[in-house]
Amino acid sequence: MFQKILVANRGEIAVRIIRACKELNIKTVAVYSTADEDALHMQLADEAVCIGPPKASDSYLNIHNILSAAVLTGAEAIHPGFGFLSENSLFAAMCEEVNITFIGPDKTIIDQMGNKSNAREMMQKANVPVIPGSNESITTIDQLKRNVEDIGLPVIIKAVAGGGGKGMRMVFDEEHLEASFLQAQSESKAAFNDNRMYVEKIITPAKHIEVQILADNYGNVVHLGERDCSLQRNHQKIVEEAPSSSLTDGVREKICDSAVRAAKKVGYKNAGTIEFLVDKDENFFFMEMNTRIQVEHPITEMITQLDIVKEQINIAAGYKLSVTQEDVMFKGHAIECRINAENPAFNFAPSPGEISYLNMPSGGLGLRVDTAMFAGGVIPPYYDSMIAKVITHGNTREDAISKMNRALNETVIEGIQTNLDFQLDLLQQPSFVSGDYTTETLSKVIIPNWLNDKEAIDETI
Amino acid sequence: MFQKILVANRGEIAVRIIRACKELNIKTVAVYSTADEDALHMQLADEAVCIGPPKASDSYLNIHNILSAAVLTGAEAIHPGFGFLSENSLFAAMCEEVNITFIGPDKTIIDQMGNKSNAREMMQKANVPVIPGSNESITTIDQLKRNVEDIGLPVIIKAVAGGGGKGMRMVFDEEHLEASFLQAQSESKAAFNDNRMYVEKIITPAKHIEVQILADNYGNVVHLGERDCSLQRNHQKIVEEAPSSSLTDGVREKICDSAVRAAKKVGYKNAGTIEFLVDKDENFFFMEMNTRIQVEHPITEMITQLDIVKEQINIAAGYKLSVTQEDVMFKGHAIECRINAENPAFNFAPSPGEISYLNMPSGGLGLRVDTAMFAGGVIPPYYDSMIAKVITHGNTREDAISKMNRALNETVIEGIQTNLDFQLDLLQQPSFVSGDYTTETLSKVIIPNWLNDKEAIDETI
Repeated sequence: MFQKILVANRGEIAVRIIRACKELNIKTVAVYSTADEDALHMQLADEAVCIGPPKASDSYLNIHNILSAAVLTGAEAIHPGFGFLSENSLFAAMCEEVNITFIGPDKTIIDQMGNKSNAREMMQKANVPVIPGSNESITTIDQLKRNVEDIGLPVIIKAVAGGGGKGMRMVFDEEHLEASFLQAQSESKAAFNDNRMYVEKIITPAKHIEVQILADNYGNVVHLGERDCSLQRNHQKIVEEAPSSSLTDGVREKICDSAVRAAKKVGYKNAGTIEFLVDKDENFFFMEMNTRIQVEHPITEMITQLDIVKEQINIAAGYKLSVTQEDVMFKGHAIECRINAENPAFNFAPSPGEISYLNMPSGGLGLRVDTAMFAGGVIPPYYDSMIAKVITHGNTREDAISKMNRALNETVIEGIQTNLDFQLDLLQQPSFVSGDYTTETLSKVIIPNWLNDKEAIDETI
Repeated sequence: MFQKILVANRGEIAVRIIRACKELNIKTVAVYSTADEDALHMQLADEAVCIGPPKASDSYLNIHNILSAAVLTGAEAIHPGFGFLSENSLFAAMCEEVNITFIGPDKTIIDQMGNKSNAREMMQKANVPVIPGSNESITTIDQLKRNVEDIGLPVIIKAVAGGGGKGMRMVFDEEHLEASFLQAQSESKAAFNDNRMYVEKIITPAKHIEVQILADNYGNVVHLGERDCSLQRNHQKIVEEAPSSSLTDGVREKICDSAVRAAKKVGYKNAGTIEFLVDKDENFFFMEMNTRIQVEHPITEMITQLDIVKEQINIAAGYKLSVTQEDVMFKGHAIECRINAENPAFNFAPSPGEISYLNMPSGGLGLRVDTAMFAGGVIPPYYDSMIAKVITHGNTREDAISKMNRALNETVIEGIQTNLDFQLDLLQQPSFVSGDYTTETLSKVIIPNWLNDKEAIDETI
């Protein structure tokens, strides 16, 4: 087992990883930018190294500084967390160069899954259904039209080299097809110097269902069930639950089996997540694979009692998986609410600043709060705005929801704007209570309802 | 189901119960003494009623004031928590008088189990092994000698009407027998106006093993396994774990079956705990039954995923048990460390006062902190000195211990003395790590070792 791990991240995931290391008796090295000089992750770690100024590209994305910190402190492995360098194959390759274990899959897999068109192709080879779309790179209008005729509208046009929403257009009717394509292509050309595009059917209404995978270096792959992450705004997940309340058992089994098959086919190692869209007839389609730990991993941990971060470390250290598929027992239902420093009434604008008073919920059975925040702590403007993940687990979904209601009602955060009231309102809304929501429900139903509720309350005041 | 419950207690157990009620959508009434005007339990409850000055006999033990508060606020039931009025049959009877449900067993059972000689007799009828002892009340030296001859030394002499350690003497050799008896008897006469005594064999070395029972109003009784509470000082439990690491499965089954049989025999209702002593040959003996929720109930909740407080409320409201014995699944291992405001270096003297800074551990899988404390909160001198219960759960005992180490290392409590360092030292001691401890280990091994360790550290400084 490793003696010392460097955690190349910040915030709650860095704290989460450091705590797992402590429980495994592994020394930790934190890295921090000058904006994080009082951050909890650097306070909790055994050692902490400043890696640069606040801007992520100068610190948390600065491969040279992070690797220097690892070499200087004698860390044998690096856990990248999520975001930042976690899906950067160059970083994984450079770790290898300096003989430091990157806690994640091989650099080639990161690359293969990062290239969306490539990932799609590999999934087809593994007999995993993919979203109907072009199987060729499209550069001309003729090619585009031929492909769209096959697939049918609506479609999304994407850049093969794409990322961050660049070179992407949704097309709902034929008259906008050509113009959208040309815009997307010129965006791609400008951003990535690559004019190859592809198109995919837009699946809607749909559930966002993702399957957690663990794979060791010896070909063993297990799934830890699915998560329903359909409640999202601009692809930002807000509330997640496990298991999904709407999947039938037969389809659940098929999706999970597909995920395991896919992971085996690509020779995946370590923890990963395969994301699917599931339409109203329970057809499911591969969307993408995330080759890292995810924000919402705790809900899977709560229903399986398996610590995914510790599994990641064990796998990277060359151990076999601690469980076989038969050992994985699913119990109860878990929900995560992301509490963010943002103002939902102003289009969820980030609200960084100092937290003057903080009371996080605690106590009782089936409550977990993962946070790096404390009273007097600061949410810097440079990074994401998450304050805490509140996670509840109950024997039933109703149970988990009532615990979440209790927990959020106990939460007090002063000094900055948060989405706490919004989350509390969401928990009461029929489309959440029924579990019958899709990726569109948040924007089309829940947010408008909340604004109405808020208006009514504001008028009363 | 009840619409409103009054919680006749304070501190963490009051908070625990209020949170359970919130999760069940039941309104709560807190009662508080003037020493608890800023206490968390009264802040969290929907309503709060002051029931008198700090002294417990004037407030938390004042039946009249508490029942008045219940009647005035329209509470339909009262949860007594532990300590205070929780095992007071007069209180249970008076609740009945005013048509308020006492959340606990019938007043007659409280009485029967409260009378130790009576309880012993009932257990014998249920074929539950009791500690060898006198089956008659002893008032004369002749009777005493005859009984001690049968039982064999060492023995403990106890008052039939006893409680709080009054009228109790341990006797290890014959020459002290008579004098000890006469002292104990005169103490009993003075305290309880009752000169009836009984003697019991002292079982040592022994494990303190207790079984959690749930029983509904329809004759259904289940056990939730055992807890090992052998680590105690002057009968004060300090660390508890579930399951016991030293019981063989066969004996575990026998003890748990005995507990269920006993509860059925006495017609027990609601949650209760049957305490046993288990000697080195795994013979087990009934010690006493606690007819209430216990401090250490969370470790049982962690390994069964059943909420005992909610079960208590459901049972009292006339619902059937939510589980059969077959439904109760045991998973993993849980440990509780009681963090107290006390100074272990000064014979564990209480250290009440204001907590100027508080950081409780959080995050990760399998950690739970039950507390009513917060930064700026006060431990009043009038009540018990518990600050928090830190509970960890892991797939194995080692796992739970490593989580506890991590958790206690993260804990910071400033402004008062605590037993935190003592608990951290305890976790490292071989007699704890091995699990091979008895009711004598804390006083005879762990405390002396800690004092040595401390001295060594103090010298270094």
